[in-house]
Amino acid sequence: MLPGYEEHQRLIETARGDRPADLLVRGGTIANVYSAELHGGNVAVTGGRIAYVGGGERAIGPETRVIDATGMIVAPGYVEAHFHPWVLYHPVSLVEGVLPLGTTTIIADNLFFFMQMGPDGFAAMADDLRNLPLLYLWMARLTSQAEFPGEGEMFAPEKVQPLLRRDDVIGTAEVTRWPALSAGDPALTSGIRAAKALGKIADGHTGGASESRLQPVVAAGIDADHEAITKQEVLNRLRLGVWTMLRNSSLRPDLPELLRAVTEDGVSTQRLIMTTDGPSPEFIADNGLVDGLLRVAVENGVPPLQALQMVTINPATLFRIDGQVGGLGVGRRADALLLPDLASFRPQTVISRGRVVAENGELRAPVPDVAWGSYGSRPAFDADLDLSDPGLYVPEASGTEVPTIHLRSAVITERRYRRVAKENGAPGGNGDLVHAALVDRAGGWVSRAFVSGFASNLEGLASTYNTTTQLLALGRNPRSMALAAGRVRELEGGIVIVRDGDVIFELALPITGMMSKLPFAGVVEHNRALSRVMKSAGYEHHDILYTLLFLTCDFLPALRLTPLGLLDAKSREVLIPTEHRTRPEGP
Amino acid sequence: MLPGYEEHQRLIETARGDRPADLLVRGGTIANVYSAELHGGNVAVTGGRIAYVGGGERAIGPETRVIDATGMIVAPGYVEAHFHPWVLYHPVSLVEGVLPLGTTTIIADNLFFFMQMGPDGFAAMADDLRNLPLLYLWMARLTSQAEFPGEGEMFAPEKVQPLLRRDDVIGTAEVTRWPALSAGDPALTSGIRAAKALGKIADGHTGGASESRLQPVVAAGIDADHEAITKQEVLNRLRLGVWTMLRNSSLRPDLPELLRAVTEDGVSTQRLIMTTDGPSPEFIADNGLVDGLLRVAVENGVPPLQALQMVTINPATLFRIDGQVGGLGVGRRADALLLPDLASFRPQTVISRGRVVAENGELRAPVPDVAWGSYGSRPAFDADLDLSDPGLYVPEASGTEVPTIHLRSAVITERRYRRVAKENGAPGGNGDLVHAALVDRAGGWVSRAFVSGFASNLEGLASTYNTTTQLLALGRNPRSMALAAGRVRELEGGIVIVRDGDVIFELALPITGMMSKLPFAGVVEHNRALSRVMKSAGYEHHDILYTLLFLTCDFLPALRLTPLGLLDAKSREVLIPTEHRTRPEGP
Repeated sequence: MLPGYEEHQRLIETARGDRPADLLVRGGTIANVYSAELHGGNVAVTGGRIAYVGGGERAIGPETRVIDATGMIVAPGYVEAHFHPWVLYHPVSLVEGVLPLGTTTIIADNLFFFMQMGPDGFAAMADDLRNLPLLYLWMARLTSQAEFPGEGEMFAPEKVQPLLRRDDVIGTAEVTRWPALSAGDPALTSGIRAAKALGKIADGHTGGASESRLQPVVAAGIDADHEAITKQEVLNRLRLGVWTMLRNSSLRPDLPELLRAVTEDGVSTQRLIMTTDGPSPEFIADNGLVDGLLRVAVENGVPPLQALQMVTINPATLFRIDGQVGGLGVGRRADALLLPDLASFRPQTVISRGRVVAENGELRAPVPDVAWGSYGSRPAFDADLDLSDPGLYVPEASGTEVPTIHLRSAVITERRYRRVAKENGAPGGNGDLVHAALVDRAGGWVSRAFVSGFASNLEGLASTYNTTTQLLALGRNPRSMALAAGRVRELEGGIVIVRDGDVIFELALPITGMMSKLPFAGVVEHNRALSRVMKSAGYEHHDILYTLLFLTCDFLPALRLTPLGLLDAKSREVLIPTEHRTRPEGP
Repeated sequence: MLPGYEEHQRLIETARGDRPADLLVRGGTIANVYSAELHGGNVAVTGGRIAYVGGGERAIGPETRVIDATGMIVAPGYVEAHFHPWVLYHPVSLVEGVLPLGTTTIIADNLFFFMQMGPDGFAAMADDLRNLPLLYLWMARLTSQAEFPGEGEMFAPEKVQPLLRRDDVIGTAEVTRWPALSAGDPALTSGIRAAKALGKIADGHTGGASESRLQPVVAAGIDADHEAITKQEVLNRLRLGVWTMLRNSSLRPDLPELLRAVTEDGVSTQRLIMTTDGPSPEFIADNGLVDGLLRVAVENGVPPLQALQMVTINPATLFRIDGQVGGLGVGRRADALLLPDLASFRPQTVISRGRVVAENGELRAPVPDVAWGSYGSRPAFDADLDLSDPGLYVPEASGTEVPTIHLRSAVITERRYRRVAKENGAPGGNGDLVHAALVDRAGGWVSRAFVSGFASNLEGLASTYNTTTQLLALGRNPRSMALAAGRVRELEGGIVIVRDGDVIFELALPITGMMSKLPFAGVVEHNRALSRVMKSAGYEHHDILYTLLFLTCDFLPALRLTPLGLLDAKSREVLIPTEHRTRPEGP
């Protein structure tokens, strides 16, 4: 990310006026995020970096492209500070969707890439993604989002920590299982210390932590957090020295509430950041990405330049990349937007590394895909795994009351006890209860439970889109679940819904089981179709993707279906253990 | 600076409430520099770090010291972001002077330590200074402030750059010779790139640079600058992405002018910092250090919490040490002040690493001196150097007009031509002209010139206190100059003034020729005496120490007396070359 000798020399020469610029953006009004001012000025670019910002010009040569920005605001490209680039979209297709909206840098979670490709595969992918006209920087996970046997080995320090030496890995990623930080888990704290010894940072996740329980998590070393859901939670985090990210995601569109810390309490915004936290494709299509955060902030009374700071220089400063991105400063990457106004924040022109890459919402530069098959992903499904038996999906039920997962919202559950009738392969007669099974794709185990409050008319759904990337099946009808699971297997990962014996929705997710190979527009279309189908199946909440994602996690209240079995995430009690299966002998 | 495993574990345990705190500061109002709020809260400390900040308490054990802060404001210790700890005081004696005033971290220039002790000697000194109750962090010089033969070898990248790996060396120091950065000097830019590759920063110095000439210096990679002397110069720097330090030094007390960028133009303060830039001892005694900056800021209309941010969290964020200092955040060093108000900013109690180190302006903790003789400093003077010949100090003068250095202010000079009578050893008859000679302490060369506008009644002064640390002699009477020089030699460095054949002022500066071994109060007393003596000798300006320091530098307008001879600093023309001397043969 830093310039080498030759690039540095050329930059200085152009800054001095001794070498023509590649690009001159002339006559605009600069939205200066360092000073929080609007002021006139021209911006000259060479070698993809800003060489000059000021009232004069730098040498225009025959090769210099001149863009007239008269009447426009010239702003730095937006920085998304906390993102999961695997919500059906993948890191390349996402660029198609969000680069025209002005986001030019994404600081991304490496979770599923690391888990499925291993450290070397992830590193190879990250190398290839450097060719994109959007800068990906990475946060390296220290642990998964759902404990499983072998997790410690997968995330061993000698596998994780070397990644921190890469210049595009700029910190450790959120530890969703934050009580482990409070407990001083040595593998986690050593990862955090390793990052800091390299001058990097540790992202955090403290969902639901009280003021008192935040203290040991901050003591463990987290620098940032994005889990506040009330104004008071913003204050609790900010006051302890935590860079506080205000989130507006498809799952948690909390920004108006969180901004009250600014608009009502008047706290300093210099350590506040806004983030979308990886929203669903349809949310992006409807609300934009970082541009949408800016609209909400300004609509809620935040002055436009302060809002802009919260998605440019503030995240860049947190991540210690403010010499490279986050503002139109000399020496920085020439990632700039021409904005008609500071209300819509929708760019007329998007410039990345000094090239026009989008205009009027349309891409103008190639977004080269990468060779997804080349990163050594683990096999999608074990060849011997038999998914056709409906009995695989049916929880044990004794006729007495059994603990069930009740969804209170899209992702928050509570423990309920229900008397259930055991049905083998027949349509259920248990009201809104559906069967749920999490099946190891390697065939080693299956966890099962009943779920209520989800989708009472759902016959069968199977999905690898969940925090474990194992096969999650849900439905009233185990035969439909088996059919859906079989189809997911044929797709080598994906989401499939079956009704009346037919597949009525399917989306292949061959990349780690989480990501489609479709273009961004196709992903949005499938997301909308999925929402419609689920609504017709009785899904009562607002974000089916996050429901599926987090039903299997181990950090949200209360009961979750995990590789350990039916787990109480807080007490860590396993209510129904996973069933370990003997793989059938070969012929 | 980062905690190790055991320290980290203990911190987390206390944060969790499972281990008694060493110290609890209870009942105060916290000046929170993260949120720019005042709010109630208790602060618990363990192992010198903050383990808890909030409305509750953490376990009080029998060993826990409890400080009642009722009615007091609890603020983070002040951070001095750009400092030269060698203005007669040395890094240890300075602590005596400024720790009781609330400065608990100083980010310091290593210039003379590096030049006189070499990289190993500097490193050994920095190690020893870690025992002080004030945190020194260092910026490593890439070049000197006055070009000399052998400079390139002394500052070779293989000598400078390994220092950047130390955790207490947090960046490269200002390059006062900034046109060399504009020219892309490879030794300098490679040093800056090396710092950045380690996640560290590059401090800058762009005195007098226009908006246009700033651009290539910023392109070369500087992150910060402290040389703005007008409001417009503040804007010019800040807008380019440079962290801008507002200076109030003994030489340049410009803060009221510079703050107009905030109070009149309303720029964001989040990338502004205030600094004293190494003022004279008497200035510190009269005006305080960082506490004085805060008083000036608030008197000029800056809101107190914003002013506080500019000397705490802002410099900590620039230098990427905000996880360690700069705020009362969990995990940070427990450097805290109990302030009666946010107007005087004079602490009643100063806490450093969790210990009370000063109360009511008096030290309460030992300030252990270091073994100054142990760092391998170069010999003060060559044994064969003869300083007794008055002719050594008399410039060549042909009877025609000669170029002379005219001091327009304490440090800014202009070129004048004067007809001078040559006098060998007799009192001069040239109006306000004095002789000036810069004598290599190793005996290899002498540079000479005439100076006007300095001190027309000065008979003889000799001083190693200058940017070259060579022997600078000034005066009307070469015999008095020789006498003063001889006495400086006996002192192994220092400042001596002679009148009527007698030494009327002397201060030994045996540490690198710049620093006294006296306690801080003694240094202040000598500084005041020097000012009185110089005033009686006709010195017309306000800062004799900076006049002496910079007469020999190579970066201020216009003529300077340097190891190369009489130099025009801008054109680099040598008007009167240095005289190279053959050392006398031994017996």
